Amino acid sequence: MKDRLHQLLDNCIEKGSEVDLTALVHVLEGFQKKIDKEYTQYIDGLLHMERKIDRDKKTCEITVPLNDVWNNSLAIVHGGITATILDTTMGTAINAILPEGYGAVTNQLNIHYIAPGIGDSLRCKAEIIHHGSKTVVISGEAYRSDGKKIAYATGTFFIIQK
Amino acid sequence: MKDRLHQLLDNCIEKGSEVDLTALVHVLEGFQKKIDKEYTQYIDGLLHMERKIDRDKKTCEITVPLNDVWNNSLAIVHGGITATILDTTMGTAINAILPEGYGAVTNQLNIHYIAPGIGDSLRCKAEIIHHGSKTVVISGEAYRSDGKKIAYATGTFFIIQK
Amino acid sequence: MKDRLHQLLDNCIEKGSEVDLTALVHVLEGFQKKIDKEYTQYIDGLLHMERKIDRDKKTCEITVPLNDVWNNSLAIVHGGITATILDTTMGTAINAILPEGYGAVTNQLNIHYIAPGIGDSLRCKAEIIHHGSKTVVISGEAYRSDGKKIAYATGTFFIIQK
Amino acid sequence: MKDRLHQLLDNCIEKGSEVDLTALVHVLEGFQKKIDKEYTQYIDGLLHMERKIDRDKKTCEITVPLNDVWNNSLAIVHGGITATILDTTMGTAINAILPEGYGAVTNQLNIHYIAPGIGDSLRCKAEIIHHGSKTVVISGEAYRSDGKKIAYATGTFFIIQK
Repeated sequence: MKDRLHQLLDNCIEKGSEVDLTALVHVLEGFQKKIDKEYTQYIDGLLHMERKIDRDKKTCEITVPLNDVWNNSLAIVHGGITATILDTTMGTAINAILPEGYGAVTNQLNIHYIAPGIGDSLRCKAEIIHHGSKTVVISGEAYRSDGKKIAYATGTFFIIQK
Repeated sequence: MKDRLHQLLDNCIEKGSEVDLTALVHVLEGFQKKIDKEYTQYIDGLLHMERKIDRDKKTCEITVPLNDVWNNSLAIVHGGITATILDTTMGTAINAILPEGYGAVTNQLNIHYIAPGIGDSLRCKAEIIHHGSKTVVISGEAYRSDGKKIAYATGTFFIIQK
Repeated sequence: MKDRLHQLLDNCIEKGSEVDLTALVHVLEGFQKKIDKEYTQYIDGLLHMERKIDRDKKTCEITVPLNDVWNNSLAIVHGGITATILDTTMGTAINAILPEGYGAVTNQLNIHYIAPGIGDSLRCKAEIIHHGSKTVVISGEAYRSDGKKIAYATGTFFIIQK
Repeated sequence: MKDRLHQLLDNCIEKGSEVDLTALVHVLEGFQKKIDKEYTQYIDGLLHMERKIDRDKKTCEITVPLNDVWNNSLAIVHGGITATILDTTMGTAINAILPEGYGAVTNQLNIHYIAPGIGDSLRCKAEIIHHGSKTVVISGEAYRSDGKKIAYATGTFFIIQK
């Protein structure tokens, strides 16, 4: 495994451009954070997520530095990555208020894309709209580093016993 | 840059578990495919996307091998990753039928999650519902390797001049 | 009550235009169908819904004659009325396949409006996407009398015990 | 036409129950308001809509008295009627801030149904999320007379020249 990893990195270094290798540093730094147990999930590490949870206000905020790695062919952040951060922010906000042993799974997600995702970072906020016995309805917003809102989402999450 | 990359990999190898390193091989193999110009976008490489476009039927199909890297805390594929593959499949289907110089950007995305994303791979299909002069409405479906449908999506895309 | 009704009708006849009174005939004919037990719900009567249910194919089709009564200020059928017919079509398709004593309630409804609702009538079709133990995901389409698709919807319905 | 109207009303009075005739009073009173030019659209009259527009805050509020006429087979307000009031509230809020000669048409509507629509009335509020050059993204909420939120909606509206 180790040899395979070194071989892969050598290939990348040999053929990759400056831009490629800068992107690869970003990926490996993120991966290392997961290995260092800063995160429980690889995705959270790869995206370098920074979370703030406010249990009293029932809100969650996640900030992610933007990087070429997550761009689509128009050189803006891929809508699916915005969806990933929004979904994580909404799920985290819900999990923060559920009792021990319960979790939330996305049942339905609706996203309005408003402006191109560019700049240094993306900040997502989630706010609970309705907390029922079986489902939670929640909204999420994504902002660029210049303060412009780039997406507005709502989701229905099912409450499950883990 | 090269030293930094080697150092990062050594750190990962030193502290990472067998599972971590298997996941890292998956990530680096995907990254290398982008460097090898098999893909234009890093995400497509990281996800090891395999595309089939049928211009006559106006459909697109993308298959992605599943991997721990893309799982959420419930050990199923993250809903945002399913969204990413669906969005790419839908966008690719639309781009395939647009004239030279035009592209599609997601304006609105709606996803119903139906079953947990587990198994070997995820296969997404897109089908155009309405092709207007300014917008395209399209549906997308995601299937597991056992054939079970795990998500159904619809999206509105804006047609833009690149 | 009877006097009040006669008084209201006399007022309408006195002040109403030809267009108003034609619209009122449409409304009263629909209302009478409910009183004649052709329908169980007033809305279904007011909209003069014609239903076709195919239990084998798990589909439902509802056709509604268009009328000024249901138009918005742009002289096209109100998006909420299209939503009403789509929601009824989807709910009816689900109820048709549920066991005795069970019913379906809309949890989430998503509609893409594609073309203006004009012409003689609106025909809606629903098709089940996923039939789970607690929820059903379903799609619905609305067509004008000239065959043009004017809306595409998906919905999540909860299965409840009546 | 007048004879036909009288004949229809007589039929309704002859065969209708007390509940039917109370519902019919509600319908005719609403229709009369349109004839009396209190409203420009029949639907707005039939639903007895009361509008409050705050151009400074860019919000709109519409209240509708509930009535058997608008119920589904579960004896709660039909989801499509909630959609109709939400759509009208959102469209009215947008039209209130557009320049003379411009109007808004619904392109996409997404509704989360949260609680059954029962009680005396339904109050809907709309708030603009994003005002672009071609589209407006807006949210809408529906409340029962006991204050409970029964639905949360978002919509994309296209700005058109009338």
